[in-house]
Amino acid sequence: MKWDAWGEPALATRLSDDIKALLLNVLGVSAADVDAPARDDVRLRDSTLTAADEHALAGVVGADYVSTRDADRLPHAGGKSTLDLLRRKGREPQDAPDAVVMPGNDAEITAVLHICTERGIAAVPFGGGTSVVGGVDPVRGRFHAVVALDLCRLRRFELDEVSLEATLGAGLPGPRAEELLAGRGYELGHYPQSFRFATIGGFAATRSSGQASSGYGRFDEMVTGLQVVTPAGVLDLGRAPGSAAGPDLRELFLGSEGVFGVITAVRLRVHPTPAARQYEAWMFPDFATGSAGVRAVAQEGAAPTVLRFSDEAETGITLALAGQTGSGCLAVAAFEGSPAHVAARHDATRAVLTNAGGVSLGADPAEAWERGRFDAPYLRDALLANGALCETLETATTWANLAALKDAVTQALQATLGTSLVMCHISHVYPTGASLYFTVVTALGDDPIDRWTAAKRAAGEAITAHKGTITHHHAVGIDHRPWMAQEVGELGVRVLRAVKQTLDPAGILNPDKLIP
Amino acid sequence: MKWDAWGEPALATRLSDDIKALLLNVLGVSAADVDAPARDDVRLRDSTLTAADEHALAGVVGADYVSTRDADRLPHAGGKSTLDLLRRKGREPQDAPDAVVMPGNDAEITAVLHICTERGIAAVPFGGGTSVVGGVDPVRGRFHAVVALDLCRLRRFELDEVSLEATLGAGLPGPRAEELLAGRGYELGHYPQSFRFATIGGFAATRSSGQASSGYGRFDEMVTGLQVVTPAGVLDLGRAPGSAAGPDLRELFLGSEGVFGVITAVRLRVHPTPAARQYEAWMFPDFATGSAGVRAVAQEGAAPTVLRFSDEAETGITLALAGQTGSGCLAVAAFEGSPAHVAARHDATRAVLTNAGGVSLGADPAEAWERGRFDAPYLRDALLANGALCETLETATTWANLAALKDAVTQALQATLGTSLVMCHISHVYPTGASLYFTVVTALGDDPIDRWTAAKRAAGEAITAHKGTITHHHAVGIDHRPWMAQEVGELGVRVLRAVKQTLDPAGILNPDKLIP
Repeated sequence: MKWDAWGEPALATRLSDDIKALLLNVLGVSAADVDAPARDDVRLRDSTLTAADEHALAGVVGADYVSTRDADRLPHAGGKSTLDLLRRKGREPQDAPDAVVMPGNDAEITAVLHICTERGIAAVPFGGGTSVVGGVDPVRGRFHAVVALDLCRLRRFELDEVSLEATLGAGLPGPRAEELLAGRGYELGHYPQSFRFATIGGFAATRSSGQASSGYGRFDEMVTGLQVVTPAGVLDLGRAPGSAAGPDLRELFLGSEGVFGVITAVRLRVHPTPAARQYEAWMFPDFATGSAGVRAVAQEGAAPTVLRFSDEAETGITLALAGQTGSGCLAVAAFEGSPAHVAARHDATRAVLTNAGGVSLGADPAEAWERGRFDAPYLRDALLANGALCETLETATTWANLAALKDAVTQALQATLGTSLVMCHISHVYPTGASLYFTVVTALGDDPIDRWTAAKRAAGEAITAHKGTITHHHAVGIDHRPWMAQEVGELGVRVLRAVKQTLDPAGILNPDKLIP
Repeated sequence: MKWDAWGEPALATRLSDDIKALLLNVLGVSAADVDAPARDDVRLRDSTLTAADEHALAGVVGADYVSTRDADRLPHAGGKSTLDLLRRKGREPQDAPDAVVMPGNDAEITAVLHICTERGIAAVPFGGGTSVVGGVDPVRGRFHAVVALDLCRLRRFELDEVSLEATLGAGLPGPRAEELLAGRGYELGHYPQSFRFATIGGFAATRSSGQASSGYGRFDEMVTGLQVVTPAGVLDLGRAPGSAAGPDLRELFLGSEGVFGVITAVRLRVHPTPAARQYEAWMFPDFATGSAGVRAVAQEGAAPTVLRFSDEAETGITLALAGQTGSGCLAVAAFEGSPAHVAARHDATRAVLTNAGGVSLGADPAEAWERGRFDAPYLRDALLANGALCETLETATTWANLAALKDAVTQALQATLGTSLVMCHISHVYPTGASLYFTVVTALGDDPIDRWTAAKRAAGEAITAHKGTITHHHAVGIDHRPWMAQEVGELGVRVLRAVKQTLDPAGILNPDKLIP
């Protein structure tokens, strides 16, 4: 992962001349002559970890697994939101954790949390570093230092082939987890856009949702058990596939973003590697018609593995990027499983969508979507380099409220940003509602950080005023914290604080995240 | 609901001569000449509610909705476990709430909780009174009185036909909720054995699971939102069909059994009234073969609406009750939905079960099961009247651990009780595991309460020692509380206590339930 952009340098993308012309014509922007520092020129704030602190931490994890070197601190300086990337282009000293600590097991984590509590050091659990909401920002809070608790050494892998359950270490990145499972003939099937870099622990801590959620469920729905190390002790949650033994405490730690404890292992439902895959895309005349169609698919239980539906603006850009023209709203679907199961669900989905007014485009557009499905963040980097600010935000609501919420958020963004492209798609469907995923492209302007901050605030206000959730799958971090009291109520916030006080009485874990 | 037995007097059942002969031959028991009091002869402990308490409560809900009369207190004296029924046959003064309070809306509940907090009165939220774990026992705790907070007046009904969501008042009994939905062409599809009497609020507060859980999910999976009135304020939870905005606080109140607050309304996923229904039963040679078959159904996603599988002992009794003979293990399945969807799932299930060694018995045994599916508690009453103690208990675990857990619980029960019938079935299936539902019939003996208490303790120890959950769908109440620390860990218990302290600092809500 690059420190100041997405992913791997070799996969960086360039904009076509057509897109460059579009940016110039619509937004008036072109290749920026950015005065950004090279990696070796970046200055970080000085580490405030004391030698005694470092000695104590090294006494637990070993000297090789504690580092205060800038080269190690920089990649742990935060996540990968557009604001993060813009901040990293600055020349002033940048925020970074005062050290990176890499514990090797639960006992070491317990000891590290004890040292942090005793010595007054904040600890930010760190997985793949792909947060787009400030979830891993190195915030010291009221402590004299903050360390990134990098969980990359937690690589446990166990598989129960009778129960179809895998136990995966929190530090396993998505591709490595799937590789281990594939070696035994199984798949998890969790493919968020961050898949190539994000980790099992991060998926759980943020309630991640993947592109195949229609078929395999959100990540939280796959979780059958969690191992959590907290300053107050260890929790081993999820005793049975179903239970009425009181509140489900797993659900307190799913989405807890490291503020209650460190998720160190996750037990997950897996399925056999799909034997068959089919794809199909449909074009609808407009968003209202197509969203009624995907709603019918979700409610009638046709159960495609992937189901996405783009509005007019996003469809237009998708076609333009592929060098095509046309109008309407594009739905793409994929079906995975046994050949018979795939065929049955494909037939059922086709019947529902055709009946709803969709015109089949065959498999090509859906296969094209799948090929590029992890690449959007690279496109964002290319846009930034061409003077265009690109960022995403997302929400969810009931089907009855979907159109009103979409309109309100779109208007809030456009009113704040002026001329801009606001695109939207339904990325995850449920029987009772769906998510809305917005992509915004606008001119960087003189102060892009200020510009996006204002737009994000307006979008958040529109979302909460129109009964959406402040985040469907990006989590809360710092960026969504202002809306948490509206999301769960002031009393809900008090409940979260009480849990925090019980498990992390000193407050060392991920300060200023999630809980207002 | 009868005060000292299950259900409606008109539906009481009688044992056939064959069954009576079986009881005499196997257990050595016959019709008991029970010296149980008539309803009018039952003596209750005196109400300790003061006139000032009653006046204050009446000031909120109106004098018509507060009662200290024995005739109102007796039906609120507890639930319907076999121990409950045995206790009610005693002649000593019986426990009962000191008053029954029937609030009409959330504001009244807020005010009642305020009065209870101020005056030191415990409050037990009360729905249908069908708890089999002591969940609604009138425990005063450290307070001078306890009231039953009967929620029968909370009958809200709203339906969003676009999003397929209904908002149902906590006091609606199962049949009334289904009747309201059916009038609009929809169904909830939650049919636990307590269905005819239990309420929407009770289903949520106990994580109830119905007989159609394979198709429609557990009750907690149907819940999209909860309204909860606590002494500290009101919570409105469940903002969107999917969210990453932190921990899912709904899951703290599902299964909370009234100890954190009073669930007053539940938002639920509904589906259209099924247009078609099909049934089929299969016989397997033994439990191992058949459980592998139902596991394959659950894991391959064939998705019958109902799927149950009885062991050899239960199958034998089922056949005997129907006047038939035979051996093996019976699986029954039902399929509901659109004709095409029903046919597809039926075909898929048939293929899997036949391949696993099942021999079809046609539809009759499955239809017979459905006709009698709410009647087992009546049979329990008839058995009690014939000298036989009958009780059930349940657990769940992974598929890999299922057989070992079943054997351990069976052995624990038989070792404690001596000669007895211990029957078991898989009542709910998941991809990763299943529930086990045990029915025990044994002689009442000289001290049936002591006898069952010992057996239940042995079963609970076997369940926790063999990695089962202490309850799959009966909830915790008083009876399962001794095992909660093993279920969620000492630290998990501390988390529950912290939530309790935040929402109900005086501790008036349902004392001594759920949380150790």
